[in-house]
Amino acid sequence: MHDYTPPITCSTPSECFPLSQWNETMECGSELAVDTMKKELKSRAILADCSTRMRSIVSFYFCYLLCLCLGIACVVFVSIWNSHWRGGFAWDGSALQFNWHPVLMVTGLVVLYGNGAVLYRIPLTWGQNKLPWKLLHAGVMLLALLCSILGLCAVFDFHHTNSTPNLYSLHSWIGICTTALFTTQWVMGLVGFLLPCSPMSFRKLLKPAHVWMGGCILILSIVSCISGINEKLFFALKGTTNGTMPYGNLPPEALVANSLGVLIVAFGLVVLKILSNQKWQRPEPRSEDMGYSPLLQDDS
Amino acid sequence: MHDYTPPITCSTPSECFPLSQWNETMECGSELAVDTMKKELKSRAILADCSTRMRSIVSFYFCYLLCLCLGIACVVFVSIWNSHWRGGFAWDGSALQFNWHPVLMVTGLVVLYGNGAVLYRIPLTWGQNKLPWKLLHAGVMLLALLCSILGLCAVFDFHHTNSTPNLYSLHSWIGICTTALFTTQWVMGLVGFLLPCSPMSFRKLLKPAHVWMGGCILILSIVSCISGINEKLFFALKGTTNGTMPYGNLPPEALVANSLGVLIVAFGLVVLKILSNQKWQRPEPRSEDMGYSPLLQDDS
Repeated sequence: MHDYTPPITCSTPSECFPLSQWNETMECGSELAVDTMKKELKSRAILADCSTRMRSIVSFYFCYLLCLCLGIACVVFVSIWNSHWRGGFAWDGSALQFNWHPVLMVTGLVVLYGNGAVLYRIPLTWGQNKLPWKLLHAGVMLLALLCSILGLCAVFDFHHTNSTPNLYSLHSWIGICTTALFTTQWVMGLVGFLLPCSPMSFRKLLKPAHVWMGGCILILSIVSCISGINEKLFFALKGTTNGTMPYGNLPPEALVANSLGVLIVAFGLVVLKILSNQKWQRPEPRSEDMGYSPLLQDDS
Repeated sequence: MHDYTPPITCSTPSECFPLSQWNETMECGSELAVDTMKKELKSRAILADCSTRMRSIVSFYFCYLLCLCLGIACVVFVSIWNSHWRGGFAWDGSALQFNWHPVLMVTGLVVLYGNGAVLYRIPLTWGQNKLPWKLLHAGVMLLALLCSILGLCAVFDFHHTNSTPNLYSLHSWIGICTTALFTTQWVMGLVGFLLPCSPMSFRKLLKPAHVWMGGCILILSIVSCISGINEKLFFALKGTTNGTMPYGNLPPEALVANSLGVLIVAFGLVVLKILSNQKWQRPEPRSEDMGYSPLLQDDS
């Protein structure tokens, strides 16, 4: 069990909003005056600290709400696009099977992944035992990974049925690298942070790499999704040749799918903002996170 | 002129590599022993600090060298792709004019931009006056911006000549937003950090936003470039219809352009790594960077 120091909070309203005001007319030189001055300064420092923390927490929750809303909007937009304009879903090797690909990749590799990544940043969880949040983080990421793998299966199977070659486009190169990195990241996270046999030195070495790679995977996911949506729209909206309005005329489908791309980029940038803000990082135990917190041990 | 504190460095080899070793057999209790112990501890602390700093500087230069090499490789690959496989360059409204678009966007929006962004991180510049580096940063970014605008002109003019609609694809939406944000960022940077009339409070407010937006623009540039290269390859490599080998067969052109995409992503991630590492940030003056350093004033 670590020597955990919870973040300083305002335990009473008077600490955050002291009623005493600075006495401009106070006599200098007397001991009483110096004591009062010290108390006032301390009170003002607590007030300033509380105010800064409150501003930081409010701005976090604003970003987090934005992240949740953008994530939901991404899932809604990609589902509507594929169900309404691309004919819906099936698992029969037809174009309807392909439609699972964008839905599962956006939901898994972007929305679930992004939400799983920012879990530790929620201030509400900081005073609590870290283990349930660790398990939730691993669980959400596993769900994201399974969605991504299923999304890849959908497109590989569709290609196989239609004798289309696999992994030739730049989109597919980046996409497959992203999923491979994500799989490695998840396995390394499990081995390093959850298995009881993982040594402390390995965990210490792994943590900054895990955090950095987490951000890189999100960037790669965004790159993969945008290039994929762009490619799909050029394939699907060919104008007269397949009875659709051409992409160049910006039919409603193009507007919805382009907006989905913009939403994905916005979601990714908000998640990266949350991850990169030092003030929003979960306060670590005093031992500078050197303590080992395996799967079955309370580390908070 | 600020009260600048240069980073601690090893002024003599003995500071970094003290020859004296810890004497295990030293008698405890005597004043001499305590003094020697203190000196040894201080010497060891200096040694550890020097060693950490040296490791940090060496790893920075490794990343910086990687960034330079990847940047050069990007420019070489995009130039070879468009000169050797796409027929070269012209400014006559033909496909040869379009070829300027990928070359100028990759060179400006990715390579020059990324190199301009990491300039302040070079440890060699930290002890020097910041103003010339500020001007170089602004100059490289201006060059990057001009390349990007010229790259946009190339494609808009090509579309105009060929009666192709503008700004309908997701690639073009993200690309135009990136260039617009970059233009705003450059103008705000000029106004906030270089013009003598800019107030200190504005500069203080602008700096974190400028740094954050800088990273976002790079991510957007990478997204734009990858989606653009992917789109271009589907347009260009149509197999029998235009006498090329189809993209699905991965002809040499596809391999080169896909590799260009991978190089761009790798370059972007290395630049973001350099920008995000707290240890590699230029040490700010003691006044916590509150001092205003306009165009014609020495601020180091």
